[in-house]
Amino acid sequence: MTQDTPYLLTPGPLTTSLRVKRAMLRDWGSRDPDFEALTADVCARLKVIAGAGDGYACVPIQGSGTFAVEAMLVTLVPRKGHVLVLSNGAYGRRIAEIATRVGVQVSTLENADDTPNDVAALRKRLAEDDSITHVAAVHCETTSGLLNPVEEIAAICCETGRALLLDSMSGFGALPLDAEGQGITAIAASANKCLQGVPGVGYVIVDRGALQAAQGNAPTLVLDLEAQQRQFEKDGQWRFTPPTHVMAALSEALMELEEEGGPAARLARYRANYDLLSQGMADLGFRPALDPAVQAPIIVSFHEPQAAWFDFAEFYERLKAQGFAIYAGKMRAQDTFRIGVIGAIDPGIIGMFLDVTRNVIEKMQENG
Amino acid sequence: MTQDTPYLLTPGPLTTSLRVKRAMLRDWGSRDPDFEALTADVCARLKVIAGAGDGYACVPIQGSGTFAVEAMLVTLVPRKGHVLVLSNGAYGRRIAEIATRVGVQVSTLENADDTPNDVAALRKRLAEDDSITHVAAVHCETTSGLLNPVEEIAAICCETGRALLLDSMSGFGALPLDAEGQGITAIAASANKCLQGVPGVGYVIVDRGALQAAQGNAPTLVLDLEAQQRQFEKDGQWRFTPPTHVMAALSEALMELEEEGGPAARLARYRANYDLLSQGMADLGFRPALDPAVQAPIIVSFHEPQAAWFDFAEFYERLKAQGFAIYAGKMRAQDTFRIGVIGAIDPGIIGMFLDVTRNVIEKMQENG
Repeated sequence: MTQDTPYLLTPGPLTTSLRVKRAMLRDWGSRDPDFEALTADVCARLKVIAGAGDGYACVPIQGSGTFAVEAMLVTLVPRKGHVLVLSNGAYGRRIAEIATRVGVQVSTLENADDTPNDVAALRKRLAEDDSITHVAAVHCETTSGLLNPVEEIAAICCETGRALLLDSMSGFGALPLDAEGQGITAIAASANKCLQGVPGVGYVIVDRGALQAAQGNAPTLVLDLEAQQRQFEKDGQWRFTPPTHVMAALSEALMELEEEGGPAARLARYRANYDLLSQGMADLGFRPALDPAVQAPIIVSFHEPQAAWFDFAEFYERLKAQGFAIYAGKMRAQDTFRIGVIGAIDPGIIGMFLDVTRNVIEKMQENG
Repeated sequence: MTQDTPYLLTPGPLTTSLRVKRAMLRDWGSRDPDFEALTADVCARLKVIAGAGDGYACVPIQGSGTFAVEAMLVTLVPRKGHVLVLSNGAYGRRIAEIATRVGVQVSTLENADDTPNDVAALRKRLAEDDSITHVAAVHCETTSGLLNPVEEIAAICCETGRALLLDSMSGFGALPLDAEGQGITAIAASANKCLQGVPGVGYVIVDRGALQAAQGNAPTLVLDLEAQQRQFEKDGQWRFTPPTHVMAALSEALMELEEEGGPAARLARYRANYDLLSQGMADLGFRPALDPAVQAPIIVSFHEPQAAWFDFAEFYERLKAQGFAIYAGKMRAQDTFRIGVIGAIDPGIIGMFLDVTRNVIEKMQENG
């Protein structure tokens, strides 16, 4: 780690271990049996993390997490389907935008960016509108860092016979998930968040029955998860060139996760990072944008100080010059910035960050 | 290079230099100005290679080359457009399949897998059918290794006012291209062929006017190149998480290409590889599937020997055990296998491969 590679306190891509990056120092034949085996092993490990058994398939897909989310929607929601999107941030709004673009009927149930999805309103809407076939929700809204009530949402979907499509991007690998126990139809996520891999591949863990029923549905070749899964079952091959190095890094990252003690141990580390960060930032006078009761220990939004000395661009550059890259805010109706506590980051690094931040704001206050 | 990492004599992903892979040993903030600058620099270099000036944009896209091809088609061909696909291999057929999937009218002009696109037939078809708005062609058909007559195709498209969409996947970075001089509307390619980067990102070099006219056309969020380009022009940002490490490797690979002397020097090295390979394989009794006059020095198809001792799976495993991964065939109507001559491979390595192949076939002939 040299000075020109700051720690990434972001929602991802984030700081990965050298071990994960070194796994990319080999070229793999994408159609070689060794790479087929690596892919199958990665998928099996991802299913375990999701709490998904034999009734589920894990279908990796090239691209960012949003590619996986669009693939999930465009594959699984029939052209005559109707998806209700639970939205309280940019990623819920993005799902609605995808559904609109791909031409399925879409409704939204909106909450403010600092408020969890309203499960009573969900229950009411589903009772009122029989045409809704699918519910789409965001597990941890990266916009703010808010944790949505996935267990309750999943239970309501099961009771009312709706398929739940979950964007679990920023929490997968740390936040608890039980796809099978909760009857979740599909979960989309990516390599480069809590799994601590590098960006370039996503995946959808999906109920096999729902996937098989979607054959021929997708008006796209590359994003058709059903066709990809059929190919895997036929000969173990990706239909289109996989990001071999990124997959090798993900494989290494999954071994690292297992060695750390699995998602529960990883969540505990992130919680320790979060506890130290939130206390330290409070001591420095920063106010969190969310009620701690709804805050996931993934990424934290802070209000920008309403003071003449504060300028986000300057704050960012000064922190970066001292080795830390933070993240701009994305919440509506309030000026915020974000600090991620995920990645190959521990409380020692968070402590260094807090020391640096203290220096930076003192300097900015002197100047401003 | 240890024994468990064979040389990849494939159409890609292929053997890259250690220098290119080492460029992935750093984590980049995807929204950091340093990464914005890297992206802009990569795009500028790709445009130079394509012979594309200010009238063109280079839009990178996450995923494999086929993601770039689908993005090119779905963005640029209007819902009421009609695309004529010149097809003489699996990649031409794939373009037709994409066009069918995304719901635009598609016609094909087919030739056998060992025969170049028929330019007289193209001219005739365009004269007969005014409804054709776009022509799609494949530069070097990876199915066989055949070079299509792109200059003539481009000239006919210009004369008749049709937009040419070119899949230049396996030749970009080595085969000559002059987008602007030839009036090509769009060129799709990827990082992991002749550019000798790693897989995970593609790009489309596209006429700005055609791209701007496509606003709102694509029934997809993630594959919409026009929306991505507008975002780049607004703030230099990728809309969705870019494969940062893959992009860093591509940046390094482009510097390496420049140091080698650019596409002409790279083509000369590949031609030297090809000349040695084709002579050596002929000496071993293997017959090429293509007339050398239409063979690009990228990937070479050979007929499988019609002899009891030959079995492709065994041939593959024996070569791999000695450090070389070759590639299965894909031509219709004949049993072939393929050997790539691209990547960080020189005639010395091709010579080693020929020695190994001689040993392998002697062993197989003794046993079989």
